[in-house]
Amino acid sequence: MWRAASKQVIRTVGSSVSDLSPLAKQLHASPGSKKIVGVFYKANEYAAKNPNFLGCVERSLGIREWLESQGHQYIVTDDKEGPNSELEKHIPDLHVLITTPFHPAYVTAERIKRAKNLQLLLTAGIGSDHIDLKAAADAGLTVAEVTGSNVVSVAEDELMRILILVRNFVPGYQQVINGEWNVAAIAYRAYDLEGKTVGTVGAGRIGKLLLQRLKPFNCNLLYHDRLKIDPALENEIGAKFEEDLDVMLPKCDIIVINTPLTEKTRGLFDKERISKLKKGVLIVNNARGAIMDTQAVVDACSSGHIAGYSGDVWNPQPAPKDHPWRYMPNHAMTPHISGTTIDGQLRYAAGVKDMLDKYFKGEDFPQQNYIVKEGKLASQYL
Amino acid sequence: MWRAASKQVIRTVGSSVSDLSPLAKQLHASPGSKKIVGVFYKANEYAAKNPNFLGCVERSLGIREWLESQGHQYIVTDDKEGPNSELEKHIPDLHVLITTPFHPAYVTAERIKRAKNLQLLLTAGIGSDHIDLKAAADAGLTVAEVTGSNVVSVAEDELMRILILVRNFVPGYQQVINGEWNVAAIAYRAYDLEGKTVGTVGAGRIGKLLLQRLKPFNCNLLYHDRLKIDPALENEIGAKFEEDLDVMLPKCDIIVINTPLTEKTRGLFDKERISKLKKGVLIVNNARGAIMDTQAVVDACSSGHIAGYSGDVWNPQPAPKDHPWRYMPNHAMTPHISGTTIDGQLRYAAGVKDMLDKYFKGEDFPQQNYIVKEGKLASQYL
Repeated sequence: MWRAASKQVIRTVGSSVSDLSPLAKQLHASPGSKKIVGVFYKANEYAAKNPNFLGCVERSLGIREWLESQGHQYIVTDDKEGPNSELEKHIPDLHVLITTPFHPAYVTAERIKRAKNLQLLLTAGIGSDHIDLKAAADAGLTVAEVTGSNVVSVAEDELMRILILVRNFVPGYQQVINGEWNVAAIAYRAYDLEGKTVGTVGAGRIGKLLLQRLKPFNCNLLYHDRLKIDPALENEIGAKFEEDLDVMLPKCDIIVINTPLTEKTRGLFDKERISKLKKGVLIVNNARGAIMDTQAVVDACSSGHIAGYSGDVWNPQPAPKDHPWRYMPNHAMTPHISGTTIDGQLRYAAGVKDMLDKYFKGEDFPQQNYIVKEGKLASQYL
Repeated sequence: MWRAASKQVIRTVGSSVSDLSPLAKQLHASPGSKKIVGVFYKANEYAAKNPNFLGCVERSLGIREWLESQGHQYIVTDDKEGPNSELEKHIPDLHVLITTPFHPAYVTAERIKRAKNLQLLLTAGIGSDHIDLKAAADAGLTVAEVTGSNVVSVAEDELMRILILVRNFVPGYQQVINGEWNVAAIAYRAYDLEGKTVGTVGAGRIGKLLLQRLKPFNCNLLYHDRLKIDPALENEIGAKFEEDLDVMLPKCDIIVINTPLTEKTRGLFDKERISKLKKGVLIVNNARGAIMDTQAVVDACSSGHIAGYSGDVWNPQPAPKDHPWRYMPNHAMTPHISGTTIDGQLRYAAGVKDMLDKYFKGEDFPQQNYIVKEGKLASQYL
């Protein structure tokens, strides 16, 4: 009965999309059961190892009981690619799709077109570029993420990666497990972070947290963004605003990418821009893999122009076995992990639950969570 | 001629040691040529890769020309062990021995006894526990290090290791180079540093720098030392003094060792003390390997009681191929590297040169550099 009622209402809304667009569908759950689909990574044997490991398929953000007790249907899978995938089966009739940057379900214009009942796309984490946001906006959908849920997690991870590259940690670790001992082979390019010039491309939530954490390291801190940081905070951090990205970049010993992937930042670091960086520059990118030209990074790491590259984002994800960043010299890459710490999972699981609750009640989400609000794209994506 | 004169003078001083002891030999270079021996690690093909790579055998701290232009003899080697080693050949007639913690020449009581001409032991870096300090004091020698030369280097490295353990970085990196992608296998025990309790055993120069760098991470910071930090600094850092080590340790999620190796700290972390730590504790030790009971660490890492162990110090060094820390689970070890960054090398090379210059001129060293001053042990070693 719940399902029938729901289908009835949604069909009405769904069929009106093309007529209403660019006007938005109003986002509130009509009464009745919703079909909610979550796409997460599988934990398998690791699920049982930590009761707070909420972000995996097996724990499904810890909201199954809560959803089902209200009569909603909750389908969770990690099977997201291709016409026979589990996700694909549910595209035609799901109402809410929960995805995550760590195991991204690519929500293309074509999928959106076929998702006649879809109203709401929630990102468990931060970064919704795996969704075709323009298509979502045109279809009058709402896209929201748990803004702030893992910004501390990512900023901490960036500082780790800066130090891993500056210290040349990886070859040292490899020596140990290979039974070797050659201090010189590490030391000839191990440095202090102190005194180096660090620039962040983007000084939003994560960039600011990184700069605050860098402050006691006595670096020369630079940042480029559309907007200047609040003067009091800028003064506290001691970071210098650089209006022109291409003026800032060649000054940097270390560059950290902290900008969302948009049409403006896709391929931002191409062969030409990389060629203008300092020889021996270190780059940390936990933002998105597609901000870099994949092959240009490989070439610059191979030539030594980039002396170290570390990050947890790839294009695409999961990175295929033959992704060249796995095998280029002087990298310190990991799978997409920085924002999915246990602490981060607890926060984004709570944030998703909160937004679902508001959705069922017809209430607004926290304003900063919206990426597309009832058909209108957030300003940074315009 | 220089050598003959020197031998003459030194023989006089040398022969007086046993008579004078425990009275000290007065430390100033008598006129004439000195035989100075340096024991460093070899860089081989890496020497040519960086003009500032001063700490290796090939560059010899960059002081050869300066020493030889004054008529001194300067012999440098990495061959330090056993009766047929290069170092051993020069023990009977060297005046000054320069060593380093990164490739420690073990200066035993027996070697000191045979070094009849020895006056001065200089450590290029910090940490002189590879020298039998009591024997050196009894022989009326002076032992000095370049205090402060690499404290920033080591503190930065410690913060890197804390994050590497908290984030479970190493398995992520291994997945990448092995062609794998399993976010769950990393995430189930990856955490934020924020909110965790971090305790440092020792809050001297390095410990304080670490605490300052930890401050923006919003941790619960504890420290144990003989002395309280200056109240203004303590207040700025927000770290809490713990008078009783064994009261502090069980509170810590993360323990960092920042104490010199002395008779009091040797084997400090034995089986019993480790058993009282929090299950899942993370330990960072860039201080000295012998502060830990080697096998107790292996056992606790194997059982999971210690969830992660990272450091760059071993007992002995170089670590033999079969050192069990190379193969225990959840470690992030490297060779002894944290204090020998290029920046650190520039500073400790300059510090050694400065002390040699003062020695030739009969001037005092900076007070904080002395470990043994003309037969008297510095207070922390008493």
